[in-house]
Amino acid sequence: MKLEHIGIAVQSLGVSDELFAKLLGKESYKKESVEREGVTTSFYAAGESKIELLEASREDSPISKFIGKKGEGIHHLAFGVDDIAAEVQRLKKEGFEFISEEPKEGADNKLVVFLHPKSTNGVLVELCQEKP
Amino acid sequence: MKLEHIGIAVQSLGVSDELFAKLLGKESYKKESVEREGVTTSFYAAGESKIELLEASREDSPISKFIGKKGEGIHHLAFGVDDIAAEVQRLKKEGFEFISEEPKEGADNKLVVFLHPKSTNGVLVELCQEKP
Repeated sequence: MKLEHIGIAVQSLGVSDELFAKLLGKESYKKESVEREGVTTSFYAAGESKIELLEASREDSPISKFIGKKGEGIHHLAFGVDDIAAEVQRLKKEGFEFISEEPKEGADNKLVVFLHPKSTNGVLVELCQEKP
Repeated sequence: MKLEHIGIAVQSLGVSDELFAKLLGKESYKKESVEREGVTTSFYAAGESKIELLEASREDSPISKFIGKKGEGIHHLAFGVDDIAAEVQRLKKEGFEFISEEPKEGADNKLVVFLHPKSTNGVLVELCQEKP
């Protein structure tokens, strides 16, 4: 598994895109909305991995809830896998719990699942696979 | 800047090393104590990046304080740079604030500085450079 990206919850992409462009010394290379998840995303390259800024696109977005509870900050870690269905089965056997086991379409042409943070030391872990 | 590692605060390396070995499908490749910082660390390869678990080695460790306030979870993001002093100067000019501007010895043969999360969207950002 490689670290594919880090998701960071932000209040405003307008403000945070400016901040991360200064921090990383480069512009966002892609913006994408995932309506089903209620998020607008903005991506930055950081070596082999990516930084994904996440802004809520509606009030009941998981990102609104996260920021309401914890404030802006790191939201999830995503690991890239070649066969997401096989990884879900492997991790279930190891005792990990999933928020939903069924891979769904995420941003960036990926199929994604999330493990429940209670089984992963408080870290929201995403697995993602490039869509076939 | 490449994403060099993600630091995750854990209560117990004994428990969390077992958990992350199962999650990532591989063992920790290195353990190292940084007494000045009051931490014991355990490293996992994840592609070009690393996962660094951080356990407090004394009560006044920043990791104890973090877990006391926020619980276990992601503690910081670290970006690898070639010239840490030049990056500190660049980012100061851009208006970023540092917890301390003077690079210190960190784990994994690195010189490190931390930006203040209030200037980086609530994210504790480390810059690190391989020691010459």
